[in-house]
Amino acid sequence: MAAAPLLLLLLLLGAAAAAGCGYQSCPPTRPGLLNVHLVPHSHDDVGWLKTVDQYYYGVRNREQHAGVQYILDSVVAELGADPARRFVYAEVAFLSLWWGQQDEDTRSRVRDLVQQGRLEFVGGGWCMSDEATTHYGGTLEQMGLGRRFLRRHFGPCGTPRVGWQIDPFGHSREMAAELAQMGYDGVFLGRVDHQDKVARAQCQELELLWRGSPSLDPPNADIFTGILPNVYDPPPGLCWDQLCSDPPVVDGDGPERNVDEVVSSFLRAATAQAKLYRTNHIIMTMGSDFHYENAHLWFKNLDKLIAHVNARQSNGSRVHALYSTPSCYLRELHRANLTWPLKTDDFLPYSDGPHQFWAGFFSSRPALKGYERLSLGFLQVCSQLEALAGPAAREGPHGCGDSSELREAVAVAQHHDAVTGTERQHVADDYARRLSGGWGRCQVLVGNALSLLGGSKDPPVFCDALNVSVCPLTETSTHFTVVLYNPLARRVSWPVRLPVNGTCYEVTDPQGHPLPSQVVPVSGVTRWLRGRAGGARGELLFQAQAPPLGFSTFRVRQRSRGGPQDPPKWTSEESGPLEIQNEHLRVVFDPHTGLLREIQNRHGGVSLPVLQNFYWYAASAGDALSPQASGAYIFRPSSGPVPVAKRVSTALLKTPLVQELHQNFSSWCSQVARLRPGQPFLELEWTLGPIPVGDGVGKELITHFQTPLATAGRFFTDSNGRQILERRRDYRPTWNLSQTEPVAGNYYPVNTRIFIQDEKLQLTVLTDRSQGGSSVQDGALELMVHRRLLHDDERGVGEALDEPLVVRGRHRVLLDPAGAAPDGHRGRAQEMVTPPHLVLAAGDGPHLRQFSGLRRALPPHLHLLTVAPGEGAGTLLLRLEHLGGRGGTETLDITTLFSAFTVTAVREMALGGDIPLESVSRLLWTTATGTPKPPPVPKLDPRRVTLEPMQIRTFEVTMSYPGPGGP
Amino acid sequence: MAAAPLLLLLLLLGAAAAAGCGYQSCPPTRPGLLNVHLVPHSHDDVGWLKTVDQYYYGVRNREQHAGVQYILDSVVAELGADPARRFVYAEVAFLSLWWGQQDEDTRSRVRDLVQQGRLEFVGGGWCMSDEATTHYGGTLEQMGLGRRFLRRHFGPCGTPRVGWQIDPFGHSREMAAELAQMGYDGVFLGRVDHQDKVARAQCQELELLWRGSPSLDPPNADIFTGILPNVYDPPPGLCWDQLCSDPPVVDGDGPERNVDEVVSSFLRAATAQAKLYRTNHIIMTMGSDFHYENAHLWFKNLDKLIAHVNARQSNGSRVHALYSTPSCYLRELHRANLTWPLKTDDFLPYSDGPHQFWAGFFSSRPALKGYERLSLGFLQVCSQLEALAGPAAREGPHGCGDSSELREAVAVAQHHDAVTGTERQHVADDYARRLSGGWGRCQVLVGNALSLLGGSKDPPVFCDALNVSVCPLTETSTHFTVVLYNPLARRVSWPVRLPVNGTCYEVTDPQGHPLPSQVVPVSGVTRWLRGRAGGARGELLFQAQAPPLGFSTFRVRQRSRGGPQDPPKWTSEESGPLEIQNEHLRVVFDPHTGLLREIQNRHGGVSLPVLQNFYWYAASAGDALSPQASGAYIFRPSSGPVPVAKRVSTALLKTPLVQELHQNFSSWCSQVARLRPGQPFLELEWTLGPIPVGDGVGKELITHFQTPLATAGRFFTDSNGRQILERRRDYRPTWNLSQTEPVAGNYYPVNTRIFIQDEKLQLTVLTDRSQGGSSVQDGALELMVHRRLLHDDERGVGEALDEPLVVRGRHRVLLDPAGAAPDGHRGRAQEMVTPPHLVLAAGDGPHLRQFSGLRRALPPHLHLLTVAPGEGAGTLLLRLEHLGGRGGTETLDITTLFSAFTVTAVREMALGGDIPLESVSRLLWTTATGTPKPPPVPKLDPRRVTLEPMQIRTFEVTMSYPGPGGP
Repeated sequence: MAAAPLLLLLLLLGAAAAAGCGYQSCPPTRPGLLNVHLVPHSHDDVGWLKTVDQYYYGVRNREQHAGVQYILDSVVAELGADPARRFVYAEVAFLSLWWGQQDEDTRSRVRDLVQQGRLEFVGGGWCMSDEATTHYGGTLEQMGLGRRFLRRHFGPCGTPRVGWQIDPFGHSREMAAELAQMGYDGVFLGRVDHQDKVARAQCQELELLWRGSPSLDPPNADIFTGILPNVYDPPPGLCWDQLCSDPPVVDGDGPERNVDEVVSSFLRAATAQAKLYRTNHIIMTMGSDFHYENAHLWFKNLDKLIAHVNARQSNGSRVHALYSTPSCYLRELHRANLTWPLKTDDFLPYSDGPHQFWAGFFSSRPALKGYERLSLGFLQVCSQLEALAGPAAREGPHGCGDSSELREAVAVAQHHDAVTGTERQHVADDYARRLSGGWGRCQVLVGNALSLLGGSKDPPVFCDALNVSVCPLTETSTHFTVVLYNPLARRVSWPVRLPVNGTCYEVTDPQGHPLPSQVVPVSGVTRWLRGRAGGARGELLFQAQAPPLGFSTFRVRQRSRGGPQDPPKWTSEESGPLEIQNEHLRVVFDPHTGLLREIQNRHGGVSLPVLQNFYWYAASAGDALSPQASGAYIFRPSSGPVPVAKRVSTALLKTPLVQELHQNFSSWCSQVARLRPGQPFLELEWTLGPIPVGDGVGKELITHFQTPLATAGRFFTDSNGRQILERRRDYRPTWNLSQTEPVAGNYYPVNTRIFIQDEKLQLTVLTDRSQGGSSVQDGALELMVHRRLLHDDERGVGEALDEPLVVRGRHRVLLDPAGAAPDGHRGRAQEMVTPPHLVLAAGDGPHLRQFSGLRRALPPHLHLLTVAPGEGAGTLLLRLEHLGGRGGTETLDITTLFSAFTVTAVREMALGGDIPLESVSRLLWTTATGTPKPPPVPKLDPRRVTLEPMQIRTFEVTMSYPGPGGP
Repeated sequence: MAAAPLLLLLLLLGAAAAAGCGYQSCPPTRPGLLNVHLVPHSHDDVGWLKTVDQYYYGVRNREQHAGVQYILDSVVAELGADPARRFVYAEVAFLSLWWGQQDEDTRSRVRDLVQQGRLEFVGGGWCMSDEATTHYGGTLEQMGLGRRFLRRHFGPCGTPRVGWQIDPFGHSREMAAELAQMGYDGVFLGRVDHQDKVARAQCQELELLWRGSPSLDPPNADIFTGILPNVYDPPPGLCWDQLCSDPPVVDGDGPERNVDEVVSSFLRAATAQAKLYRTNHIIMTMGSDFHYENAHLWFKNLDKLIAHVNARQSNGSRVHALYSTPSCYLRELHRANLTWPLKTDDFLPYSDGPHQFWAGFFSSRPALKGYERLSLGFLQVCSQLEALAGPAAREGPHGCGDSSELREAVAVAQHHDAVTGTERQHVADDYARRLSGGWGRCQVLVGNALSLLGGSKDPPVFCDALNVSVCPLTETSTHFTVVLYNPLARRVSWPVRLPVNGTCYEVTDPQGHPLPSQVVPVSGVTRWLRGRAGGARGELLFQAQAPPLGFSTFRVRQRSRGGPQDPPKWTSEESGPLEIQNEHLRVVFDPHTGLLREIQNRHGGVSLPVLQNFYWYAASAGDALSPQASGAYIFRPSSGPVPVAKRVSTALLKTPLVQELHQNFSSWCSQVARLRPGQPFLELEWTLGPIPVGDGVGKELITHFQTPLATAGRFFTDSNGRQILERRRDYRPTWNLSQTEPVAGNYYPVNTRIFIQDEKLQLTVLTDRSQGGSSVQDGALELMVHRRLLHDDERGVGEALDEPLVVRGRHRVLLDPAGAAPDGHRGRAQEMVTPPHLVLAAGDGPHLRQFSGLRRALPPHLHLLTVAPGEGAGTLLLRLEHLGGRGGTETLDITTLFSAFTVTAVREMALGGDIPLESVSRLLWTTATGTPKPPPVPKLDPRRVTLEPMQIRTFEVTMSYPGPGGP
């Protein structure tokens, strides 16, 4: 008799526990009252003043008290203590570390909390991406990685419904579009320009619908956007973490009793906040950086606050406080059925004061930014080869390797204090260490995959220092193999440049045909960079081609004697025109100053005077207007641009394979202007640093292009490497800007390209990493390439950005008729993001000399954005992207796309790759232009997959690899 | 079928939970290994930098992060998470606050933890008593209060087995004796003199048997004493609280892994510590001030440490780490069955460096020390009347009142940062506020009790400012009543002194007979102290008597005209001898300097030249020898004593009721030397302050008595007002002292008395509060009466002890033949601790003019130490004390002792009053003198209760009050 009711009780408890997550689990609200949604949260930077591991374990607490392991322990315990409590968590990098250390009992408790909506994931990326200095490829990696983790361990209840970009320093339109396409119903932001925020508060426009793309049909890229009232902090005086010093709620009798004042203060804050927002619901973020290490403090005081605030209702108070989550708050906004403002531009740049433009981080730590971009490219190579060669590639023959370590390192690097350069030096070093570790595991995999696909047993050799012309194999060997892997879906031609000590080599292509090659002397700058006696004397050049998603193998043999022609030499060329040219371009330099003077596009016969030089701004150390110094976050020049040199020494090299002008601006600033046959762009390879600061002045170095183009204050920058936005000097599209910093206030992030144009011509600069850029004068264009600062800018990092580094990078400069679409260089930019990858071998290399994973190249406007192992065995994550530009709708047969395996099933997924597209059902929001209809889920015919311009479609592909017998 | 096994399981779980506490619940140890007992604990000061409530709630966290409510919440949760974990807690003041706020579910969980020995109470007083500046009456109050709380809520498992005096600044023998008599098996100390500790470490004498009394038969006052290795901190590098910055144990893979170093460091610390102790068990205190607010940090890391340390055993490590408690550690020491060193002196004074004698706090904050002592006395009055009048006295007729608030305030004041004067100023103010609140509730009770016992309806009037001659009732009324309540068990005669504005009054005793009285002018110093215009012009004097444990009522009426004689006046008395006298003493002053010159005891005809003056030491601000400054804790003079004045102005008042010489030393230093008929002592009432520091020099003020006594470096001070210890200049009984501070290093705490003697004479000074005292030169005796300092002494309080206060106090000076027992003045000292209490009324006062709660006075050497309401209704806590001295065994009939109620049962209790004496079974320890036998529990015959000299016996008395019909 006793057992049956007990059993029933247990079943009922079980049923209650499974009652629902997501919107179904939201707490009740009070229609007639002002509902204050209290959202407990912890903002856990995936590295900043401490490394990821230091934050996780709570090491170096003297520098910053923070231990994420305890936060998660503590929150889980405290949520368990009271079913009314809620908590939201964002950073899956930490969650996954923690999850791996929990026993099954704890995991089960956490799963229950998630199922019941008491623990809700927001954002849910591996980290909280920066939006200004990231490439969309990187944010997709990190968002997908985090979301797939959540889906894997928590099922549908683990899938976040709101974006949670509460700390990034400005917000990009492309990120908004990404979030929409991943299935988020809304996103909450912490930081928007202070002028913007005031303007929006005045007209209750802090909550709005953001249209993330002009190309995609609404509501595909629409996302509801809420700007939080206090960045992500609680209202003043209501902070109850161990890291705060506000008095706790004291409701006992005794001399310290303060509950009446606390409640009154809360009610004042709520009432004031409610004036800025449109509904009878407001949100308060109850948490901050690394809060909830002792979650009990927060929850015990919030319990009391809620009880006492609501008890006042019996005295006529019209305020109702409740534990809630951002998604529950969002649901109430949606229920309000209002018409919301529409925004179509972005939230960049961000400033929190008249002299506080957070535009320095667009360029901070250029070496880290370069390594991050390089790693993102190599991750694609690694993932593709992992998918093409199948699981066997993870196991041998050259060791165990996979892409996961590099993927996690790249995901971590997207964090808003990672690629941004706003972390402490030792943390930047740790990000690089993580990337480097990931490279190691990927190189093993790449070697395995090439051996499997190509049938070689030679161990692969990777030369990671080719940028300074170091490679022991090629320097010492008379006979080696070069494998060029091409991650793009179209054939590429790529200039190979290898350090050698011989003077003459024979290079043969996959078919055994000889290729033109040449040894040129190593430049003095590179020898200086290499920083050691000896090393290669020359560099072997040849132009190599590789098939789509595949490789070509090139054999190199040193000839016993020097070749027929004398080796080329640097010339000073005092007389004659100082110029370089190929079939596309002619580039002219001023023979007096040695500076770039003119670019001619030989096809259209168009020509443009282009004066290029390097300048530096003196970094402000604070002045009478404001004590604000330039720092890791903030760009604040205290001078106009000062030229590094007015006249440069030059050396010219002209060979059939390359024409180069070496410009030496100073002992720490040089550049090579380079044209190669077949390349329709001017490559400018700069080598900068260490920036001298012996004069006590921090310096912010720019490359500056001056043209006579009549640009009328307009220029164009990309949004995370995908979209293009028009920028106007001293102007913001949505409010009446009061410009207080004429240079910094016009800086925008450039992820892959910036351009200016007039009616006839467009001058474009493609970058190899994120940089800040602007057009401060009509016809001009500048990019900040390096910075070295002597002051902290008081945004918490507590260190001056004083990197004594030499940085080498590339710009590609294009001159086109203005008729070309503004975003017509997506393809070229993509080639810089995912360039071909060189693998060397001591012997003859693979039997199979050439391989393509595709049966045919993709049309020029289509891009194989992602080819990577999928969640399940025998599955693949595939993303196809339409690069836009002038291409119209494209159609593709996925089932016959690949040569390496047979496609057996295809399921379309949302952009994150974690949930089937058909399961996505997003809230729709009304604006003045109406309420969009829910987009129909396209009926998928994998043999006829269409892509509209700028569209990305994501698929889970089930496939089978050919047996040992071969395909 | 299903229900039965479930029920069985629940029963089994219940049985397991009740498996045992105390020594039965101790964790297993490993005989062959070094067992490291890790003792998680939190040292929670009952006020210091913050008030009790501020610490409890976690207010003012900016000044010191500490919130005890969270500590207890957190520890309970973490103990629940793992049955291996242990925690010990000491301060019941906090526990009781917390307990009152818990729901039944939490209380039940806590009870379970206590039953299972996972949560163990140590110390268990209301606070952790200071031992140098407390009176034994106060420590008994606070220990008893805490222990009774624990017994009440947790039963036998809540009773602490070890004393836990880990922070007090030196240790008294009387406290050791008290702990033994309360039933403790041992006590652990944190602070002993640094020289003592080194010496003891060298010969493994850090653990010892301490014989707390030379008067009581062993083992009655014996207590095993352990000196902890690191005060009460963990070994360096092994601190895992949120308040520490040591790295956590990182045992995952990753760049931060450190577990191997942490374990090695732990093993080194354990091995080094083991060398200093005798057994294969050592104790490590894993906690510190206000640790465990986030207990999870400590426990998670200790879990890991224990696991990894013990895992090393498989590699040959001989160290075993375990969660343990001090009592479990103590049990292992006892099991070792060793012969332990015996100590018979005390651990005072304490120094932690050659110039760091913690002797300043003996005198710091004399006003607070005075108020504490005054309150302790009034608490006895209040408790006695509560017991004598019965529960009705708590309810009316003058309001609700009881003794509990004052008892708690007095208990809090015993804390080692309370009465010590080592707290911040605002905290000292809060202690005074608490006492004052307690006085208020007690005054209501006293009024009620007097009304009930005496049959009056007049509301009682309390004049708390009589010390500055302020009392509105007596100043304005021509007719009022004085009730004198006497808390002693013998009749007293007490000088009443009331501010009046008339010149002549008629005072009648309880029998209606007129009493001699007189109005004397208010002294100029008192008028200045009173600090206002107006106020009483005169003071009415009369000598009043009151019966044992009872009151007498005196009627006062102003006479319409001045009396027969002229009112007495101050005289300068330029001519004639400057002296005062009564039947006992003649006191002579130097007519030239005005200073005390000679005291004659007229009975024995003995006379002693006594030169008394006030001096100040310049407080050190640090010097070349050491940066140590004099401060709240530390006394470090930088000069010899400087006289306040070499000559003082005097005024003499001689009346039949009093002879007074007023000495004015300076604008901030004065004294009244006073003799009254019948009083065999010279009263010196000093009024000191604010000490001038305009010269930038902190000053430490002493009263100094110089005599020709040949004292050979010896003097005598009391131990908490009970025992007497001989002190020798520049000497410690148990180690070869290297004296580095000739003054401070010879200071000892004086709680009630200090004396010097030679073969013939003894000069004794009784104090009205605790003060530091010494005999720095032979024949001299000094007491530090006030101090005002300008530097913090770097022991954490972070404030200079810069009290600009005027302090008024009394010394009673006695000159006796040396034959008198050294502790012959216990009775007189007791009268200063529990003086009669004055209650006034506007009308005629009680019908019953005189009342005694006793049927007869106690013999002179017996003292009614405690008469207070007991734990149960109708019970009384009774403590009888033999004051020692020359009295032999005394016998008493408890059943017929009281007149106010009928004794129906008597049970003998241990000294704390919380446990029956018969239930006490203490561990016995062997010393070189053998193993004492367990003391037989005396068979109690309440009609013949015997007390040996210095014995205290404690009883729970069950009684019944007479019905409404009266006794």
